[in-house]
Amino acid sequence: MFSGAQISLYPMCDDFVQVILSSLSALDPYRPQLRIETDDISTLLVGPPEVLFNAMRDLFVAASKSGKHVTMHATISRGCPGEPDAEICQPRVKIGGDRQSGSEAEVQKALQAVESATLTGQEIAAQFSYYPLGANPQYMTQIYSCIDFIRSSGVLDRPKNFCTKLGGDAGKVFATLEQAFLGFVEEEGHVTIDLTVSANSPSQKA
Amino acid sequence: MFSGAQISLYPMCDDFVQVILSSLSALDPYRPQLRIETDDISTLLVGPPEVLFNAMRDLFVAASKSGKHVTMHATISRGCPGEPDAEICQPRVKIGGDRQSGSEAEVQKALQAVESATLTGQEIAAQFSYYPLGANPQYMTQIYSCIDFIRSSGVLDRPKNFCTKLGGDAGKVFATLEQAFLGFVEEEGHVTIDLTVSANSPSQKA
Repeated sequence: MFSGAQISLYPMCDDFVQVILSSLSALDPYRPQLRIETDDISTLLVGPPEVLFNAMRDLFVAASKSGKHVTMHATISRGCPGEPDAEICQPRVKIGGDRQSGSEAEVQKALQAVESATLTGQEIAAQFSYYPLGANPQYMTQIYSCIDFIRSSGVLDRPKNFCTKLGGDAGKVFATLEQAFLGFVEEEGHVTIDLTVSANSPSQKA
Repeated sequence: MFSGAQISLYPMCDDFVQVILSSLSALDPYRPQLRIETDDISTLLVGPPEVLFNAMRDLFVAASKSGKHVTMHATISRGCPGEPDAEICQPRVKIGGDRQSGSEAEVQKALQAVESATLTGQEIAAQFSYYPLGANPQYMTQIYSCIDFIRSSGVLDRPKNFCTKLGGDAGKVFATLEQAFLGFVEEEGHVTIDLTVSANSPSQKA
């Protein structure tokens, strides 16, 4: 298993460097579990899938507390056949849909995880595209199971062309994204998510 | 065929609204060929694949001319089975890999298109993930053909985990992305690209 994300934080303000630097300490609790590398366009996080989402949530909430309009983009992946198995990515939770229990049980399990998510007090908007890859005849079925879950998650804003828009407390939104990423596709499958989150936007919600 | 993109422009400055608004006229020449809808998180462009990339290039170059650190994210898609056929998306160029001519001819054709791209005078960095979707046993072959093309494109910076980094004149970079998007996967295939472009970054290039 190889899993991780390329993330970029975009504070829309003159002191964007300061906002980014002052948010980075939010990653400190996760550093022992992640490999982190930064270049001029993004920061790579490599580690267990269930750690990635908590780390991204805390980083984004910290940046949002600046009060500035902040967005973050993440390209998140598990099981890419071009990447090696990595010890650091070993998950401590069950990955992949539970085919024996069926789609309905799978959705219920994911909903329970969202139900028990800790609130952060930070409202955010999010938009994501969910891609089960590979020579996978079930890919539309897996997408539809995931859509069933998102519909009941409590954070669905609306489906859009090419993506789905979410909104709510950052704790619930990231828990929903984590469940979409962990479940529905078998453990050895290749799943990616193209994610944008936004806080403190001056634009009117459509 | 349905094709389009969800795009978001992020100027890292206090007057980000002004930078965005003053760049929008760059889209004017393309408006007759595109359907455009904006909400608080992104702007939808729907239209022929070969128009999308020119429109995104001109919008991003216009914003970059502000001299501010600006990034843009785009979720680009063609052939999604969940979307309807749309007259406005009808391409005027050949879409899809030319299997009869073989992979090498396909790569050469894409390289010629990049060779003849108009320069903009704006240097940019870019990073993208390329996803041929569907129950497609050839998906890794298609990715490798596309990688062969990118390697020879003249704008490859380096492969990274989960994505590929490009750099160079915006004209060459967007022409390369357009060729990756148009080719390699059959016309009726489903292809998406998760793209980030960046200009005027104060960070040192890795």
